[in-house]
Order: sequence, then C-alpha cells, then structure tokens
Amino acid sequence: MEKLAPSSKIERVITFIQQQIDDRVLVAGARLPSLRQLAQQLGVSISTVIEAYARLVTAQRIEARAGAGYFVTGIRASYAFTAIAPRLDREVDPLWISRQSLEANSTHLKPGCGWLPEHWMPEDLIRKALRTVSRSATSHLVGYGQPLGFTELRHLIAQRMQMTDVMAHPDQILLTDSGTHAIDLVCRLFLNPNDVVLIDDPCYFNFHALLKTHQVKTISIPWTTTGPDLEQFSAALAHKPRLYITNSGIHNPTGGQLSLAIAYQILKMVEQTDLVIVEDDIFADLEYVPAPRYAALNGFAQVIQIGSFSKTLSASMRCGYIATQNQWVEQLIDLKIATCFNNNQLNTELIYHALTDHAYRKHVEWLKQQLALAMSKTIQNLQPLGIAPWIIPQAGMFLWCRLPDGYSAKEISKICLSQGVILAPGNAFSTHQSAEQFLRFNVAQSADQRIYQALQRAMQQLN
Amino acid sequence: MEKLAPSSKIERVITFIQQQIDDRVLVAGARLPSLRQLAQQLGVSISTVIEAYARLVTAQRIEARAGAGYFVTGIRASYAFTAIAPRLDREVDPLWISRQSLEANSTHLKPGCGWLPEHWMPEDLIRKALRTVSRSATSHLVGYGQPLGFTELRHLIAQRMQMTDVMAHPDQILLTDSGTHAIDLVCRLFLNPNDVVLIDDPCYFNFHALLKTHQVKTISIPWTTTGPDLEQFSAALAHKPRLYITNSGIHNPTGGQLSLAIAYQILKMVEQTDLVIVEDDIFADLEYVPAPRYAALNGFAQVIQIGSFSKTLSASMRCGYIATQNQWVEQLIDLKIATCFNNNQLNTELIYHALTDHAYRKHVEWLKQQLALAMSKTIQNLQPLGIAPWIIPQAGMFLWCRLPDGYSAKEISKICLSQGVILAPGNAFSTHQSAEQFLRFNVAQSADQRIYQALQRAMQQLN
Repeated sequence: MEKLAPSSKIERVITFIQQQIDDRVLVAGARLPSLRQLAQQLGVSISTVIEAYARLVTAQRIEARAGAGYFVTGIRASYAFTAIAPRLDREVDPLWISRQSLEANSTHLKPGCGWLPEHWMPEDLIRKALRTVSRSATSHLVGYGQPLGFTELRHLIAQRMQMTDVMAHPDQILLTDSGTHAIDLVCRLFLNPNDVVLIDDPCYFNFHALLKTHQVKTISIPWTTTGPDLEQFSAALAHKPRLYITNSGIHNPTGGQLSLAIAYQILKMVEQTDLVIVEDDIFADLEYVPAPRYAALNGFAQVIQIGSFSKTLSASMRCGYIATQNQWVEQLIDLKIATCFNNNQLNTELIYHALTDHAYRKHVEWLKQQLALAMSKTIQNLQPLGIAPWIIPQAGMFLWCRLPDGYSAKEISKICLSQGVILAPGNAFSTHQSAEQFLRFNVAQSADQRIYQALQRAMQQLN
Repeated sequence: MEKLAPSSKIERVITFIQQQIDDRVLVAGARLPSLRQLAQQLGVSISTVIEAYARLVTAQRIEARAGAGYFVTGIRASYAFTAIAPRLDREVDPLWISRQSLEANSTHLKPGCGWLPEHWMPEDLIRKALRTVSRSATSHLVGYGQPLGFTELRHLIAQRMQMTDVMAHPDQILLTDSGTHAIDLVCRLFLNPNDVVLIDDPCYFNFHALLKTHQVKTISIPWTTTGPDLEQFSAALAHKPRLYITNSGIHNPTGGQLSLAIAYQILKMVEQTDLVIVEDDIFADLEYVPAPRYAALNGFAQVIQIGSFSKTLSASMRCGYIATQNQWVEQLIDLKIATCFNNNQLNTELIYHALTDHAYRKHVEWLKQQLALAMSKTIQNLQPLGIAPWIIPQAGMFLWCRLPDGYSAKEISKICLSQGVILAPGNAFSTHQSAEQFLRFNVAQSADQRIYQALQRAMQQLN
C-alpha cells in the first residue's frame, strides 16, 4: 500500500467518491459505503473517510442523515422554484412566518401568526355539521360533484356578498380548495412569466411567495391608511400590469380599510386599461362597517373577488371561492379540472351546514367583540415598550406596529424565536424591504405577558 | 330623421356600439342598452337593433345572457391557458370527458367516465368516519395542521406502500388535496415552460390537460402491453426530458401492467440522466398481484410516487400524496404553502379512520370481485358489435377496445352523447391522435344494455 500524506489521503477518498457520483455508479439519493467499509476498501483510516465525507457534505455533493448514513445529494429542482426559498436569510423570507407558525408546537407563543387561537373557533358548530353530513345522500359522500362546486354553498356565498353590495349569480362563483388556491388559479389563468402584477406595500406575505412561483414581476404600491397611493398606482399603470391583488375589507397586515373615494379613483384609472383587480375578501366576516368593495362599484367587468372561511369557521376544512364574470368562470373550470380535478365536495357541505346554523352568526358577533377587546389590550401592552400602532384598525385581528428608532424587527424576531415566541417581522410583508421597523401583531394571539417580556429582553439585548 | 336602407341602419347600430366599446364608454362586462332604449335613441326599429346585436354576438364583441340582456365581452385571459380549451373540437379535447362526466345528470349513462358508480362506494364507512371525527380533538377540527399533513395518515400510507416493496419514511410523504394536485405540485417544482416531459401513448387524458397548463413539450412513448416501448423511450432521452409521468400498477386507459423486465431496462437508462419518473399509483388498491413499481427498484433517487383514495374510498373527500426524497419534500412544502397554504386536515383524518376500519379491506376485496365480473360481462356485451379488447386486463376498471375497421370513435361518441351515453373516445388519451379507433370502457359503468344499443345504432348510422 502506497504511503500518502494525510491530506492526500483525504483527497483520494474525495476523488474516489466524486468519480463514482460523476460516473453514476452512485446515483442521486444512493447511500454511500459505510465509513468502515470504505476505509477498508481504500486502505485508509476511518477518520480520513470521516473528514472526506465532511468536506463532501460542505460541497453539497452528499448529505448526512442522522442514524442512516451518507447519501448522494438529489438532483436539483428547476431554478424557477428554488428561487423562492432563499435559505440564507429565511428569517425575512415570506414563507418563514408560515412555516414557523405551522410547525410550531403548543409551547410556542405565536403573536405573528395569521389565525385565531383554537379556543376562539366554533368547534361545536363543526361537530354538529359532521353529524348532520353523516346522514347526507350517498352522492354527497362519495361522488365528485359538479365542476363549479356544491350548489347550495354557491347560493349562500352569493347572498353573503350582497352584504357588501356585490351582486353575483351563483353560477359566477367557483369553489376552490382554499382562498390561496383561489388566487393561485386566477394567477394561472391570467399570468405568464415576466408579466407585471401590482401589490400593496406592505401586503400579505404569501402574495409574494405565490407570485414568485409564477415568475412575474411585482410592483409594490405604498398602502396609505385608506388604500393604495393614487399617484404611484397611476405611474405603475405605464408598466401594463395584468393584475392588482389587494384586500379591500380589512387590509393585511395594516388593518386599514379602503375608502370609497380611493376605490372610485382607482377604478376610473383601471377602466382605461386591461388590468384586473383581484380582491381578497377573506376577512369580510370580521368587519363592523363594511369597507367599499371594488366589485360593488365595477361589478365583475374588471374585478375578481375571492374569499374563504378559514379565519372565522375552520382552517381544517379548506374551502375558498372565486366570483367573477361568466367567461372567466368557464376558463377557470377547465383549469381547475386540469390541475386539481375538483374541489372537496364533502367539505363544502360541512361548511354550508355550519354557516347556515344560526349559531354561526352569534359566534361571529362574539368574535368581533373579543377582537375589539384584544385590540385595545395589545395596544396597552405594547405602549410601555415604545411600540406604537401605525393606525388603530376598526376591525380584524391585525395591528401593524412601529418599533422605536434604531431597532430591527428582523433582529428582534430572531431573538424572540429562540425564546419560543414567533413574531411577524415587517419586511416579510414588503418587497421594498421598507418595513424593517415594523411588526404585525395578531391581537388574538397576544394575550400572554411572556410575549412582552420576550420583546423587552430582545430590545435590551440589542440596545 | 335620415332615411337609411335596412342594412345601413344595422351597420349604424353596430358602429355606434363598437365605438362605445373602443372608447371604453362601455367597458368589458358592461350591460348594453336595452333593445327598446337603443332603438329609440338611434331612431331605428327594434328588429334592426336585434339584428345588430346578433352580429356583434357572432363577432364576439358582446354576449347574450338569458333573461339579463346583452353584455360587453370580457377581457381575454392570457393565451397560455386559452390554448388548453380548443372549443372548436371539444369532443376529443382531454377536458371534454371530464366535463361531460362531471356535469352529467343521473339520467346519463357514463361508460366513459373514470370512477365507480356511487352504489359501489363504501358510504357506511364514510358515515362512520364522520361520526368518529365529530368527537375529535379541537385542533383537528379548526386548525391548519402540520405542513406535511396529518401524521397518522402519512404513517399509514408508508405502511401501505410496503405492499409494493416501496420503502418510504412517513416524513418523505407530503399530503396534498388530490392525486391531480400532487402531480401538479411536482410539475411546478420541476418544470419550466418548453421543458420536455415524457408520457405514455395512450395515457390518462388529464395528464395532457395538466401539462398544457405548464406550457411544456410532451413526447409520447407508445405503451406496449407491459410498459413503454424501450427503443422509443431511449430515443426520447436525447431531448433531455425532465419528467416521465406514468402508471405502473394499472395503466390508464389500457389496463396494462408494467413488467419487471421493462422496469429494469427503463431504470438503467434513466439512471444515466437527470430524468425523474413520476409514478401515479392511484389504482394500487385494485390490483390482485401488484405490478413492479419503479420506486421499489430505484427508491426515491429518481422516482416520485403519487397516489390518492378517490377511486376506492370517496371522490368527495379529496386527498392525495407525494412520496419522494427528503430534499424535494422540503421544496414541495414551500410550494404547497405558497400555492394552497395547506391541505385539508379534517379530510385527512376522515380518510385515516375509513382506511384503518377493517371494513375497508373487505370493501376492497368485494370491489375487486365485482370488477372482475363486470370485466368479463363487458367483453361479452361488446363482442357482438365487433368491438374487441386490446388486452384482457388483470385488474382494474378499464377496458381499452378497438372498433371494427372504418369506424371513428369520435363520431360514435358524438352520436352516443346525443343519446345520453358518455363515451371516452381514444384520441382524448393520445397526443399523437393514434387512437381514433379506440374507446375506453369503465366496466363498472357498463352494465346497462342501453349502452350497447346506443353503440349499435351509432355504428349503423355511420355505416
């Protein structure tokens, strides 16, 4: 056996493995020889193989799996999507809040998450709906249902939309598997790569994540307390945007509401163009006094309204909808069949029974009162820390707050995460990265004093 | 009032309306003046306006809605998707069978559809699962759940996969909203426009519809009775395809099964490339003797397996899964959050309870016996018409049949549709349009003698 210097030995092992990967003797996903086996085969020490494997891990040629050994790294997926997951700085990545919140266990505090605590949700209504549906007709339990989705629920949604003066025929409403799914289908219908889409700055972080998967260019329009900035909206129209995605009712993350004056000005501009407004109405049930809707003014000529029931009824029974003009509904049906075949029929029947139960209306009234109380308590709790609301929202669960000068929301969020508190740092909502000093609080998830203690400690640590 | 010849009057009305549309006085979706109103305004007769509107409808500038009047045609959606719906010849469009089958009423006979009759489905199991879940923990009823999906169901799926020698860790399994949704997510992860994808010829028609939405190029590999044609598969690899989408277990539409010899040859070729095989295992529960799976030979190095429960349990509770290597699972989670936030948690729990009920196994055994009986009866019923099976499938619901020489499946399908019988003409399954003489029969939907009477009449009519 030839005598080699230690580093040459390590390199020999590396070259041997790389050659096997390049020659596809070891294919992607294949398990590498054990340390002992390879040491024996190449006549080197086990520690030499360990070091060689460690360097191959660093070079991302192989990966270690606890208790299972080393494996050849998989084939890379296309760049198109890889770009959506910038792991180097996941903290302000739009997906970070979602993943941390969804993966959190029950010991985590989640003032940054976008939904209500479990005990605020109407579980009795859902249990009752499950029992009711267990006696439904066979076709509802086993069949695919109509392409548009459960007829009764579509009628009910059309009725509910009338509360905000939006007039839709039930056949202009297409059921989807969630509110996110609804926006995604609309994007698939209208967008090609490199198209331009307008969004608010700040806006719901998942709009960024979703639009990145569509490989489009986004232009962020600063959100004033009562709607998008008119001058910047007007200027952005020169780029021939295809869609403008927004919340009219309760704006996420600011809690602002669109004013009638701004809605009117925006529509006058939009009607000169081919732009379509996608109005995400997901928080409609939480409003005291409904804000104006673009679809109430314009009908469905250039407006698509989407919504869901996950915020006030259940996030476990996914269901969303798209309301728009007949021509687009027809195309959306084809797209829905091609990409998910049909929505969940059993689920839509459960939701229909829960929504038509008179207890649902009572539940929503109770929710609105709880949110109003929690809103004022959260403001009081944040005040001693110098964290101030940007506006006092009229309704909803979100409070958009500014940190005292010199503090970074990202840094505070990192520290708080290590203490089991999941925050929502402002830049996750801003493509311009203009919200480094902001945090979004979900007032329903902000009752625990440990949140404010964690914030205080983090601010002291950064001082 | 100027005296005009009738045709000039009609043109004057047309010009007036077109000008208003071009000037955006009448925007897309806007309602046109009533017949009477416009007749008065322009000083023409109502019949002149009727004729003018009719011509504008033909020109697709406006559209008539029953009982509601005339409306300006909406803005066109992007070409990308419009291309998927060639309405001029919807009969052999991949979406036609889906839409006709989904939109059919109870008087239609559906030998062309891809699912079992309602009374073949285990409704009691589902009713029982609904009652069980009505007593579940609150978090299961109202929460979003884990990004991967309900843990117990993922464990169960991993166990079920072992029946075909496919070894997956439960964390390598991601739940989705349906089998179609699973394939769509995989396509979104791997494909960019103009990428090349291999499919079988014939193959499940919705693969065509789905791949068109991804704007990729497809290469169809002729399907032999035991797998893809090896020579043509090998030749297609020169085009650097990203994915090969196929059914290994029971092939749709032919009912063929992959042989071990072909699986081995295909994998040896694939391992020299970056191609990923997407193995749609949706009919697994209907097999008597499982066919080999690519994932059993290759693991998840270059194979992604997908499946669902809509064929044997319920199409109303949508749920699918993706099983693959850890790295891709991580990326698929991000993509799932961005595009649909999460799958339906309540639903996955219902499915878990139904699948773990010992009555499910009995139901599946019963189904397989029924299908075997229906298979031989369908063959007997078709024989007098000269319609012969391409192969006798070992299992499943599909029978791929050749018409006597000189008959067009498309023409026969058109005639039968007018008689309330929905067939599945061969070219809906073939991008090469090489299956004009074939029909796919779902033997479970083919018991009614009126189907064979309609076929006979159609063949006589075409003779």
